[in-house]
Amino acid sequence: MPRSSGPVDSPARLSLISRHLGPNYPLNTPYTVERHPDNIDTSLLPKTQTRALTTDANPSAKMSTQPEHPTLLIPGPIEFDDAVLNSMSHYSESHVGPAFVNVFGETLSMLRKLFQTTDSSAQPFVLSGSGTLGWDLVAANLIEPGEDALVLSTGYFGDGFADCLKVYGANVTQISAEPGSRPQLPEIEKALSEKKYKLLTVTHVDTSTGVLSELKNLSELVHRVSPDTLVIVDGVCSVACEEIDFDAWKLDGVVTASQKAIGCPAGLSISMFSGRAIQAFQNRQTPPTSYFASMKNWLPIMQNYEAKKPSYFATPSPQLVRALHTALTQIVAQGVRERFAAHKAASDKIKAAIAALGLKQVAANPDDQAHGMTAIYLPENVKGAELLPKLGARGVVFAGGIHKAIAAKYIRFGHMGVSVLDPSRGHVEKAIKALEEGLSECGYQKA
Amino acid sequence: MPRSSGPVDSPARLSLISRHLGPNYPLNTPYTVERHPDNIDTSLLPKTQTRALTTDANPSAKMSTQPEHPTLLIPGPIEFDDAVLNSMSHYSESHVGPAFVNVFGETLSMLRKLFQTTDSSAQPFVLSGSGTLGWDLVAANLIEPGEDALVLSTGYFGDGFADCLKVYGANVTQISAEPGSRPQLPEIEKALSEKKYKLLTVTHVDTSTGVLSELKNLSELVHRVSPDTLVIVDGVCSVACEEIDFDAWKLDGVVTASQKAIGCPAGLSISMFSGRAIQAFQNRQTPPTSYFASMKNWLPIMQNYEAKKPSYFATPSPQLVRALHTALTQIVAQGVRERFAAHKAASDKIKAAIAALGLKQVAANPDDQAHGMTAIYLPENVKGAELLPKLGARGVVFAGGIHKAIAAKYIRFGHMGVSVLDPSRGHVEKAIKALEEGLSECGYQKA
Repeated sequence: MPRSSGPVDSPARLSLISRHLGPNYPLNTPYTVERHPDNIDTSLLPKTQTRALTTDANPSAKMSTQPEHPTLLIPGPIEFDDAVLNSMSHYSESHVGPAFVNVFGETLSMLRKLFQTTDSSAQPFVLSGSGTLGWDLVAANLIEPGEDALVLSTGYFGDGFADCLKVYGANVTQISAEPGSRPQLPEIEKALSEKKYKLLTVTHVDTSTGVLSELKNLSELVHRVSPDTLVIVDGVCSVACEEIDFDAWKLDGVVTASQKAIGCPAGLSISMFSGRAIQAFQNRQTPPTSYFASMKNWLPIMQNYEAKKPSYFATPSPQLVRALHTALTQIVAQGVRERFAAHKAASDKIKAAIAALGLKQVAANPDDQAHGMTAIYLPENVKGAELLPKLGARGVVFAGGIHKAIAAKYIRFGHMGVSVLDPSRGHVEKAIKALEEGLSECGYQKA
Repeated sequence: MPRSSGPVDSPARLSLISRHLGPNYPLNTPYTVERHPDNIDTSLLPKTQTRALTTDANPSAKMSTQPEHPTLLIPGPIEFDDAVLNSMSHYSESHVGPAFVNVFGETLSMLRKLFQTTDSSAQPFVLSGSGTLGWDLVAANLIEPGEDALVLSTGYFGDGFADCLKVYGANVTQISAEPGSRPQLPEIEKALSEKKYKLLTVTHVDTSTGVLSELKNLSELVHRVSPDTLVIVDGVCSVACEEIDFDAWKLDGVVTASQKAIGCPAGLSISMFSGRAIQAFQNRQTPPTSYFASMKNWLPIMQNYEAKKPSYFATPSPQLVRALHTALTQIVAQGVRERFAAHKAASDKIKAAIAALGLKQVAANPDDQAHGMTAIYLPENVKGAELLPKLGARGVVFAGGIHKAIAAKYIRFGHMGVSVLDPSRGHVEKAIKALEEGLSECGYQKA
């Protein structure tokens, strides 16, 4: 398994993307479909029509207030609940007025339940920004220039976290797995015993490969071999669909985004840090190296909001925070363990259906397979650029591959949130049927 | 006029805020009302009821689809147009799918019209984040550690921009005006001739004082005395209500946010940079000092989106970008010069009404008065904590003071966007009437 401590080639990542942007962009960027530009039937994208969604699979489907639209089954953004979308258009209100302060405070408190932490020293953050901002929050506050970070990479996003840490001056050692696998504990133990790392990062689910990393045993290893090392998790594609037991697993930080399994539109960076991580921040010898992503600026604000006191550093988005509040209220009402179990059950069913079609997953080992998405290898003679428009014509949007070593060889199916929790929507059946028919149209026959 | 190049006391700014957060928080934070916590009638905040808004002033008001709610007249967030709010609840879509890519591309192109630039080397950016992120974008990309920045401060937000620049290693010289005035050109000329500055920053309208800075003459001065110095404008409280002629005035950067005069909910950092600024970025000797706010990461993405090509660095918020698209479509349809004129006309009327009540403004000189907000000194025996709840009882939300030297002595009235552009809403008349009645209830009589 290759290990490098050299620079991760950030221009190469951008160039990988720009390579996908030629006139026919036959490949594409993370989360998107692989397609020819004119192959998507835009008649599928009504802008004003509003009618209830029904599906062949479930003619008695619940009414949705959303206009008919292609079913978005990429690994984020996901399809959203009606109530969450309605919260997005909440009338304007002061970001420091009592109604919004109360909503923001409750939102932060509900995040503790989502992360399963009852430790009052743990600290949630909700900031306006993309999920990527969570990397900056870690890199600018929890590690100082010249300190060492150990990055476990299972794909594109692990590499990105390493890039970000380097920008802020960390000395990064990276353990990268072959596409579809993950770094193994003995190798990680060896690295941890060779150098004292300020922090270790792991991508819980790398959206580029669908590989699930094992957090519980990893954290136990770190605490045994290098107890001062902070355990930091990129949970962008795992929070709210994969089990995360923040206290019991002794995690120090989990950063995520709103638009995946949490089920709230994109625009919020959401994170939880342990008391130990906050202490590490407070023990810094040098000031934080970001302003907008500075815990020094945000920590008192988050503490005040949760105490229902108005506070200001930069203007939050009342509409997005209200939508998050609605999403978290639903999550907490269901129970997080029930939510994880429902995602696992749906994933098992999807993976069985994919196997029944004779298809293989990028994540080879069943223990390494995510439960909120599936990265599927294409049959030898089927191209994503051919298959994905056929799914689109059936009202199903999957994403193309992004891991640079195998990008053209696989597609990605996201199955998080309402699409799996509300069976009346019939999204999973619709997707499997579209995949089966699309493959058949491409000339594929199960061997 | 005091000039300092010492550190701006960031903890002091936070402490100013925390001072406002005692059990009765008699003072408050930027943009908020100054109040006792239990003095706001929450019956004014219905959550589900939907009925048309009408006003005494305009019984024939246009129907709004928004639930009845207090009229938000703080200097941002502002009241929003129905169509903009409806865009916020757009169904989920891929952030790299053709429909959204087209919307994002058009949004970037419309920003050129808003900023009145036809120079193809100028570059718009739209990022998920608060307006504050725009400071990081400047500080992490356009200046290198150890280089000199000249910050003109007319209040809280000028001081904040200086703080941000220092975090990224800039050597900051600050020219600060007394509350209610602004640094004068001779003093600025003297500073520019003493040292070579990489960039100068000016807050077009400082939301803490309502002081308007003069950009045209300032930029002419900089180009005459120190032609290599970049002219950077904080336009958070000015873009879309104050005239900004990006090309003609030879500006190098304007950073703003979505939730003020642009009229889109909070959550987007919006900016425009000149070709010269982009060149300065590209000529850096050292890499950008942020990851999420790195132009290296975002520049190709923005260029691709505007060329209607899908592209990815971090997930944008399709809902917020669609809302911005709706807001900009309205702005461009009206014409930006007409929009500026309408804000000036409304401001003149408001300022005349305030003078007629015998009240003085924080910005003493009429030439220095913003057109999207008014900072109003309270009469000697009236306290904001007493007056603002009386406005709240009349369905009008104003903000308290924030400039630390005078915080308890003034209130702020925001008048941007639909509240002044749609007279049928009657917001301005309602606010003036509430102010008059509230003052009277507080025992104030015009001398």
